[in-house]
Amino acid sequence: MVQAAERQAQVVVVGAGLAGLMAARHLRAVGVDVIVLEARDRVGGRTYSIQAHDGTVIDLGGQWIGPSQRRLGALADELGVTTFPTYDTGQNIQYIDGARHTYSGAIPLIDPAVTMAVVQTMLTLNMMAHDVPLDAPWTAPQVAEWDSQTLATWISANVTSRGARELLTIAVRAVFCAEPRDLSLLHFLFYAHSGGSLNELVSVQRGAQERRFHAGAQAIANRMAAALGERVILNAPVRAIQHDDAGVRVFADAVTVVAQATIIALPPVLAGRLRYAPVLPALRDQLTQRMPMGTVYKIHCLYPTPFWRDAGYSGQVTNYTGVISTVFDNSPEAGTSGVLMGFVEGDEARAWSVRDPAERRAAVLRELAEYFGDQAAQPTEYIEQFWAGEEYTRGCYGGYMPPGVWTAFGAALRAPIGCLFWAGTETATVWNGYMDGALQSGARAANEVLAVLGSAGA
Amino acid sequence: MVQAAERQAQVVVVGAGLAGLMAARHLRAVGVDVIVLEARDRVGGRTYSIQAHDGTVIDLGGQWIGPSQRRLGALADELGVTTFPTYDTGQNIQYIDGARHTYSGAIPLIDPAVTMAVVQTMLTLNMMAHDVPLDAPWTAPQVAEWDSQTLATWISANVTSRGARELLTIAVRAVFCAEPRDLSLLHFLFYAHSGGSLNELVSVQRGAQERRFHAGAQAIANRMAAALGERVILNAPVRAIQHDDAGVRVFADAVTVVAQATIIALPPVLAGRLRYAPVLPALRDQLTQRMPMGTVYKIHCLYPTPFWRDAGYSGQVTNYTGVISTVFDNSPEAGTSGVLMGFVEGDEARAWSVRDPAERRAAVLRELAEYFGDQAAQPTEYIEQFWAGEEYTRGCYGGYMPPGVWTAFGAALRAPIGCLFWAGTETATVWNGYMDGALQSGARAANEVLAVLGSAGA
Repeated sequence: MVQAAERQAQVVVVGAGLAGLMAARHLRAVGVDVIVLEARDRVGGRTYSIQAHDGTVIDLGGQWIGPSQRRLGALADELGVTTFPTYDTGQNIQYIDGARHTYSGAIPLIDPAVTMAVVQTMLTLNMMAHDVPLDAPWTAPQVAEWDSQTLATWISANVTSRGARELLTIAVRAVFCAEPRDLSLLHFLFYAHSGGSLNELVSVQRGAQERRFHAGAQAIANRMAAALGERVILNAPVRAIQHDDAGVRVFADAVTVVAQATIIALPPVLAGRLRYAPVLPALRDQLTQRMPMGTVYKIHCLYPTPFWRDAGYSGQVTNYTGVISTVFDNSPEAGTSGVLMGFVEGDEARAWSVRDPAERRAAVLRELAEYFGDQAAQPTEYIEQFWAGEEYTRGCYGGYMPPGVWTAFGAALRAPIGCLFWAGTETATVWNGYMDGALQSGARAANEVLAVLGSAGA
Repeated sequence: MVQAAERQAQVVVVGAGLAGLMAARHLRAVGVDVIVLEARDRVGGRTYSIQAHDGTVIDLGGQWIGPSQRRLGALADELGVTTFPTYDTGQNIQYIDGARHTYSGAIPLIDPAVTMAVVQTMLTLNMMAHDVPLDAPWTAPQVAEWDSQTLATWISANVTSRGARELLTIAVRAVFCAEPRDLSLLHFLFYAHSGGSLNELVSVQRGAQERRFHAGAQAIANRMAAALGERVILNAPVRAIQHDDAGVRVFADAVTVVAQATIIALPPVLAGRLRYAPVLPALRDQLTQRMPMGTVYKIHCLYPTPFWRDAGYSGQVTNYTGVISTVFDNSPEAGTSGVLMGFVEGDEARAWSVRDPAERRAAVLRELAEYFGDQAAQPTEYIEQFWAGEEYTRGCYGGYMPPGVWTAFGAALRAPIGCLFWAGTETATVWNGYMDGALQSGARAANEVLAVLGSAGA
C-alpha cells in the first residue's frame, strides 16, 4: 500500500474539464495557490481530441462553437485556438414520415404544412422559454404546470402534425441525447432559453454548430492546463472529501490535498458518488440522484475524400427512425480527408449498448451507404465513442432534469456548502450543457471562492 | 493505515438489510459459505427499531405488515416475531379543501361527489395497473403512453374533483414520499399492481398498514443476523468491487472478501456509487442515475397515554396542506404509552430539510395540537428520523422511476452482470418497495447465485 502524498493549496479543484480548468485559471490570475485533481490521464473531460491513423483530428466529445458562445470564443482567441466553419454547403437529407427528402437551409422546406407546424411550435416554445428565469427556473410563473409534465406530454397535446413531431423529437435527441419523455418541459424550456433560443440550439449558421476547432476542442483544455503546469495532477481520481469550517481535505488516489476550499467541477451524478464527511445535506444529495446523463454514441467514419460533396450533399442527415439520427460532415477544413460523423442518441444508444459492437457498426454503415452510396460503407477507419461507458463521465452531453427536479431541488444546484463549491456545465445559467456553460460555471465558482478567501483575510 | 484483512467465501452479500440477510439466509440453508458486509454498526437497513426513554419500542423505518405480505408473515412466524393490529378504532380526521372532517373506515365518506370520484379513480387506476406485467413493466401494451407522462399529468387530465385530487395526492405522498409529478404513470401503476391494488397500499385493515411488530420491525433482521452469526460483518462499508469470470473481490473498510459471486442488496442509487472494475455496463450505470429515493421525515411524539382515544379519535389524520400529511397512532399494543407518528413527505420534507429543526418541531406540534388538543403539543419525547440524510440509505421509503426509465432501462434492474447479482426491494416484482419485496428479492438473487454455483460444480 502506498501512503498518499499530502499537498497544500489554497483551493483544490476536482476535475480538469473545462469548468475545473477555467476555475483554476481564474484563481491563478489573481495569485491564488490552486491544485487541480483529474481522474483521467488527460485533461478536457467531455472534450477529447485524437488523431485518426491518417492524422485527421477527431473530436470524440464536444466540438462546436456558436457565435453567441462568447466566453468560449474569447478564451479560444486568447489561447490561439483557431476555428473554421462547419461544412454546410449543399443538400441536407431528411427522412420524414419514412420518406427521403433533400433540402438546404436550417429548416426543412419539404411539406409546407409540416414546415408551418415546426415554425409555429418553435415560436411557441421560444416564447415560453423566455419566461423561465435562468438563475432560478423554479420561479417561473408557470412552474407548477411546466415542471409537472414531460416534454412528450406537451408535444402530444400541442403538436398535431406528425412530421413536426418527428422533427421536434430529432431535435430533442440531438440536443439532450435523451427522449422527450425523459425531460421536464420546464427543463427543456430552461435549456432553450439558456442557449438563446431553440433555433440557436439546432442551427449550424448562427447556431451552436456554427464552427469547429482546427486543433480539436480539447486544445482549449490542453492549453489552459499547460499554463497551470504542475498544478494539474493527472491520474488522481478523487474518492472522498472531508470538510469543515476550516477547510477541506480531498483524498485522491496517491495524493491528498489540504485546502481552504474546493471547487467540485463534475457532473452532479458524479459529484454525488464521492464520499463526503460530513455527508452532504439531503437536498443536495438527492439532487445528484435526479440529474441523469444523456446517452449517445459519437461515431466517425473516415474516407480518403469527402466524396458526398461532389454529389452535392452537405453530409447532414436527420432520420427519425435511423440508428444514427443525425449525421454531419466532420472533415478537416482543408478537405484532406473525408469524415462523416453520426450520433446514435437516446433510446437507440441505450438499446445498442447491450448489443454486439460489430452489429452496431454494420447498421451504421448500412445507413451511411443508404444516404451517400456504397462508398460510405467502406470507411478507412471507424471510430466510436460512448461516454456512458466511461467511469469518469457516465453519459453525454450532460445531466438533465426529469419533471419536478427544478421545483424541489433546483436551489441545491449551485449553492455552496461550507467550503464546497460547485461548477460544471450543468450548473451554468448561460449555455447550460455546452462548453461555454462549463466556462461560465468555472468562472462563477472561482468568484464565489474568492469572495470567501477574501473575507477570511487571505 | 490499516491493511485490510482478507476473507474468503463462496458468496459475499453487500448490505445487511432485509434483502441481503434473506439472500444470505437462503444460501446458508443449502450450506453455502457466505459473508455479509454491512456499512452500519447495525443490521436492518431501512428497518430500525429503538426504545424511547420510557422503553416504548419505536420503529424509525418500515413498521407495518399486511395480510398479503406472505413472505414477511411466514418469516416473522418462523423467527417468532409477533404482531398486533394497528390501532384503527374511532374517528379519522381529514382536511379536504381546507375544511376539517371526521369519518371512520378506509375511504372518507364526506362529500358524496368526492367519494364517488375517489372510488371511480381508484377503480380505473387498479384496472390499468393490472395491465402492467410485474416482471417486465416495459412490455405493457400501453407503455408508450403510460411511461411518457407523469402521474400528475394523468391526474390533471382524468380527475376533475378537487377533493379527489387532493386525496389521491395524499395517497401518492404517503406511498412514495414523492409528488405525483415525480413519478412515471407506468411506475405508479406497476407499484400498485405489485402490492395487489391501490386499495391495499393505502388501507389499514386488509392493507399494507394492517399490523405492527411488538418488538419492532428490525427484530426480523436482527434474528436473521443472529442466525448468521459472525458471517455478518458490521462497520464494513463496501467501496469497490473487482469482478471477472472467476469471481469477485469486494473491498470494504478494513476487510476484503474474495468470493465466487456477490449479491448487491442496496438501493440502485447506492449500488451505483460503488466502484466497479471493470466498470458496469452503461445501461446498468445509467439506471442507477435514474431511480431516486423518496424524501420523508418520520416523527414520533410520545405521551403518557394515548389520550386521543378517549376523545373518540383513531389518531389517523390526513391533511393535504399539512406539514405532516399523514398521522397514525403508533402506541404500543398494551397502551402503556401514547405515541403519535406523523410523516412529512415529498416536497414538504425537501423544503423542511433546509430549515431550522426547532422550527420544524414547532410546526409539527402545532398541527398535532390542532388535531388532538393542546396536550398533543407537549410530548414527553420527540423523535425524528430523516433517511435522506443518512449516508447509507439516502432516502425512503425507496427508489422510484420517473418517466421513461422503465422503458429504456428496466431490463437492467435485475439482470446479473457476470458474477454480480442484484437484490433490494427496488428489484422486487411483488410488494416492490416494501419489506416483503426486500425478502422476495433476496430469495430470488440467492436462487440466481445457486444456479451459477451449481453449474460451476460447487
